[in-house]
Amino acid sequence: MGRWEPGAEGRLMQSAMELYVERGFEQTTAAEIAERAGVTERTFFRYFTDKREVLFGGAVELRRVVLEAIVDAPTTAPPLDAVLAGMFAGAALIGVNRGWSRQRAALLAANPSLMERELLKLSALGESAADALRQRGVAPLTARLAGHTGVSVFSIGFDTWVGDDSPGDFPACIRLALAELRELTADA
Amino acid sequence: MGRWEPGAEGRLMQSAMELYVERGFEQTTAAEIAERAGVTERTFFRYFTDKREVLFGGAVELRRVVLEAIVDAPTTAPPLDAVLAGMFAGAALIGVNRGWSRQRAALLAANPSLMERELLKLSALGESAADALRQRGVAPLTARLAGHTGVSVFSIGFDTWVGDDSPGDFPACIRLALAELRELTADA
Repeated sequence: MGRWEPGAEGRLMQSAMELYVERGFEQTTAAEIAERAGVTERTFFRYFTDKREVLFGGAVELRRVVLEAIVDAPTTAPPLDAVLAGMFAGAALIGVNRGWSRQRAALLAANPSLMERELLKLSALGESAADALRQRGVAPLTARLAGHTGVSVFSIGFDTWVGDDSPGDFPACIRLALAELRELTADA
Repeated sequence: MGRWEPGAEGRLMQSAMELYVERGFEQTTAAEIAERAGVTERTFFRYFTDKREVLFGGAVELRRVVLEAIVDAPTTAPPLDAVLAGMFAGAALIGVNRGWSRQRAALLAANPSLMERELLKLSALGESAADALRQRGVAPLTARLAGHTGVSVFSIGFDTWVGDDSPGDFPACIRLALAELRELTADA
């Protein structure tokens, strides 16, 4: 086998998800994932530092595209619009594979320690978004509220999208959550 | 010494905070906290299950008053108003001791593992608030958005309140965050 095997990363991700669902996350080893994917354990560790990374490795890329879109938003864009540009960019990245996202969401719901990690990552994303807004000259309090509100809308939109009766694609679900939020804050 | 010592809980909390600040959270033991408070280690464990509980024990009471106020809100109250009634009740509970809250906030900011626990507790409070709204007949999506928005406003209001230049008491800081949020969602 060559050093880089075409499609190995995708096969490893799919094999890992199958095993996590069949046997449970805790009961699955990296060696078993590699075996099912038809690669060596060493190849597994070329792509992922550990078995949690299969589920959370995408967070780095998500953060990158979200922050890039916030930075690139028109200078005249109000703070929440800039954050939402980031969230829609993130949704475009994640939204290509609903099957994977649905399996991942079910796995996290069944494993509190994975869910805790997810919540921390989302909270960190909100703080990063707030930092990006501050660099655009937004006041600290406004930036934090906008960052966290953006993540709430993203996260609740995600849950709607991976639900059994999703009313549309991921961006559509974010727009739905945003419309709800506007209604909530308007009539309170 | 009698089984219940008057003021022991308060003395233990204050001694714990002093030691956490002086020596660091990780480096402090329950025995040292008890010694400084002038009680036995056994007395410490009568009040707290471990040294983290000194900082997080109040979360149970906070959750109780928040949920009670949501349940007791007028049936005609819009979802976010009901959640905010809960958050103001929580602020009334916590707002009596700014000194303690400031020390606690500084300690959490310096200890990532404590901050992680705080974020999880806040996220759980948002979900509990959403549950309470669903029991009032609010649709699931709206309930989750309102629950998490309420916690964002509470949490950012808290950070403003414990900051060096707090513009008012804790409820006033929540109102400030809420006004900011309305502006954010109105002009996006």
